Amino acid sequence: MTYCVGVHVQEGLVMVSDSRTNAGVDQISTYSKMWTIGVPGERQFIICSAGNLATTQAVLNEVKRHSQEGAETSLMTVASLTQAAAHLGSLSVLEQRKHINQTQNPAGAQMFSSSFIIAGQIAGSDPELYLVYPEGNYIASSTQAPFLQIGEIKYGKPILDRVISTKTDLNQAALCALVSMDGTMRSNLTVGPPIEMVIYTTGSLQPGRYHSFGEDSEYLRKLGKTWNKLLEESFQKLPPIPADESPA
Amino acid sequence: MTYCVGVHVQEGLVMVSDSRTNAGVDQISTYSKMWTIGVPGERQFIICSAGNLATTQAVLNEVKRHSQEGAETSLMTVASLTQAAAHLGSLSVLEQRKHINQTQNPAGAQMFSSSFIIAGQIAGSDPELYLVYPEGNYIASSTQAPFLQIGEIKYGKPILDRVISTKTDLNQAALCALVSMDGTMRSNLTVGPPIEMVIYTTGSLQPGRYHSFGEDSEYLRKLGKTWNKLLEESFQKLPPIPADESPA
Repeated sequence: MTYCVGVHVQEGLVMVSDSRTNAGVDQISTYSKMWTIGVPGERQFIICSAGNLATTQAVLNEVKRHSQEGAETSLMTVASLTQAAAHLGSLSVLEQRKHINQTQNPAGAQMFSSSFIIAGQIAGSDPELYLVYPEGNYIASSTQAPFLQIGEIKYGKPILDRVISTKTDLNQAALCALVSMDGTMRSNLTVGPPIEMVIYTTGSLQPGRYHSFGEDSEYLRKLGKTWNKLLEESFQKLPPIPADESPA
Repeated sequence: MTYCVGVHVQEGLVMVSDSRTNAGVDQISTYSKMWTIGVPGERQFIICSAGNLATTQAVLNEVKRHSQEGAETSLMTVASLTQAAAHLGSLSVLEQRKHINQTQNPAGAQMFSSSFIIAGQIAGSDPELYLVYPEGNYIASSTQAPFLQIGEIKYGKPILDRVISTKTDLNQAALCALVSMDGTMRSNLTVGPPIEMVIYTTGSLQPGRYHSFGEDSEYLRKLGKTWNKLLEESFQKLPPIPADESPA
């Protein structure tokens, strides 16, 4: 499995991904699921992927090839993040179609499916964040839904639901995304380090700050430990359970 | 869907359940999923259920009937919580079998399945907590796994994983279970109020403290709001993200 989250606040964008892939519990590997591309001062993109590893690798190779070989439509030519999401979606659908016909398995369509989050900014426009579904269609984040997740999304959702709004400052959004990832890793074996993170500042049009936290990351260990301690302290400050509410 | 959690700490037991049932998004009802029975000074049980509503209602009716009619095996006669879990499991399997044969649907076995959490104490033994699977088999909580969940379990797991150990005091365990439930409700529409909670103190052998928090519960609103505020404050106290970890 996989867990990736993209957060879109006024100050910028945060993308966080894990690096564990598995096909059953006895076939576990480490692969980066994050990829960045851009032209300083002009456009910046961050892409995270979930789903079939062969599909995501092939799709990202195609995205790269189109950009590098000067294709008519590529991340270097699209005029908006919406077009970037559509481009990613159509390459993904093309890649899946190649293999669906080769399997007799009725679950073929799901077997090869992949989803993506793409975030970024193009000069002249605001930053944007999109989720691209396996079918190639896509949705944008919004003021009401300022984060998008793919993969093993449930464990890490409550903390984001409670904390993230578009007004959350960029540093807190990054910490919240890390805590969301840390909690998911603790609760689910199929999500694991290294954790990659990019923090992009609105309007910079430069590659964001990149971090990679490995299995032995002193920072990640300290973050988890401090967070647990802060939660325990927080419980002391909660309103006491009323003694008299609806007795049996 | 449903979310129920049972927590087993040294000081006692906490059981929390929601009350939303749904078959699709346009058939939503409110049903209690918690049931208690006991003989003061001798034995106390709390049962929570998830899954097919017809099955869980029928199983609980049978559990009650056996207890009330003085059956040879019932919650009034079992010598241990293990036997209580086995009793519940066998009644659940019997009930499911009645209907599986009546459907042509290949998913029949799942359609009628139910799972349960049963917690309690019998005089002379320590309190115990069991999860009963749809197949009638069951597992106990342990020092390493001091809580058990059924239903929509993922959203509420990280907070329990971070906070609950057998040494957690009973009040904090109850607050943590409530926060786990509150977060699940916020993140998933199929889990909803009233929230029922029983807090049982080890050795009391009396019915636990019962609480029901409705949709308009002032306490639940305050709990959620205070928790969100405490989380936001906690983010201010986390170690800052290192500027120099693994630059791209």
